[in-house]
Amino acid sequence: MVTPISQLIYALARLPGLGRRSAERAAVALLKNPADILDPLADALREARATVCLCNLCGGFTLHTRQPCALCADPARESSVLCVVEDPSDQNLIERSGGFRGLYHVLHGVISPSRQTGVAELRLAALLERARNGSVSEIILALATTLEGDATAAYLCEALAPTGVPVTRLAFGLPADSGIGYSDPVTLKRAFTGRRPA
Amino acid sequence: MVTPISQLIYALARLPGLGRRSAERAAVALLKNPADILDPLADALREARATVCLCNLCGGFTLHTRQPCALCADPARESSVLCVVEDPSDQNLIERSGGFRGLYHVLHGVISPSRQTGVAELRLAALLERARNGSVSEIILALATTLEGDATAAYLCEALAPTGVPVTRLAFGLPADSGIGYSDPVTLKRAFTGRRPA
Repeated sequence: MVTPISQLIYALARLPGLGRRSAERAAVALLKNPADILDPLADALREARATVCLCNLCGGFTLHTRQPCALCADPARESSVLCVVEDPSDQNLIERSGGFRGLYHVLHGVISPSRQTGVAELRLAALLERARNGSVSEIILALATTLEGDATAAYLCEALAPTGVPVTRLAFGLPADSGIGYSDPVTLKRAFTGRRPA
Repeated sequence: MVTPISQLIYALARLPGLGRRSAERAAVALLKNPADILDPLADALREARATVCLCNLCGGFTLHTRQPCALCADPARESSVLCVVEDPSDQNLIERSGGFRGLYHVLHGVISPSRQTGVAELRLAALLERARNGSVSEIILALATTLEGDATAAYLCEALAPTGVPVTRLAFGLPADSGIGYSDPVTLKRAFTGRRPA
């Protein structure tokens, strides 16, 4: 195909969930509907790029003009309970499940030898700092029930032990070998209710 | 989520093959990797938007600076055989199969009552014009083997009949690399009808 189209396909194929074929179909849809599909996406990308950043406190997404994020700043949230998630999308999903009213801590990854994500890449120092400042009464690990999630949970338990803050993990009820992102709200809510000491 | 992120998710969810959840995951990937994923996509969209248009002849994609497209202008192609496809991505797929060395005509749709695509939306007048100019010896319909594809094929056969150009359709049959047990009854029946000497 024409080079700018190949480049577009290539750029689209880097998105999770889009293979080469679906990237091709997406490129065709974009080019066939420039005003309806391409322009809104281009605008949204530009806008998001310019305005969105990470919350200094939880590591979730927020705006440059809003530090910390709306959720961290919400006085109605139970600030003594921290929920540790891998990804901002997990945070969003948990919010929609209605199972949790505390604050979040986004790790931005799990320990993964295969993807070369080590402890250094996770927002771990910030988590330890939050755990140490005395206002946290529980840390809930809402991590994937995969080997990598389990390894990360085990590592966090050990790292957090000296702080004395009880660490719990979401109840089984999550299907095995699956990421948080694939759970439905009901399963997620039940998992929050049944959480147990890690 | 923050509004610019919601807008990004919404814009992504308009792409074929991306549901709400995968659009969310894609948005997170974009925002977590602005330099690696977001910027290349934004650049590719801008570049494609500025440079890509439809070929005046076949209706496939080309550049504003290249009319007709490289394929239509290629003297090595068999210009007397036209292959009618629904979409530019089909054209690309057929090219990769190596099964065709003629020229293309992209309809940009099929007749679909449910999606309200009628005859008026298809590039039909241009096809009739090409069929009438005397240099075309065969028109191959490479359309989907769906109800809509069948309806479009039937319509084209009728519309093209007065031109006297023979109209053929891609063979129906078993897909490559697949067992009998994986075929549906319609495919099997068509494969029997179209059987050929071994």
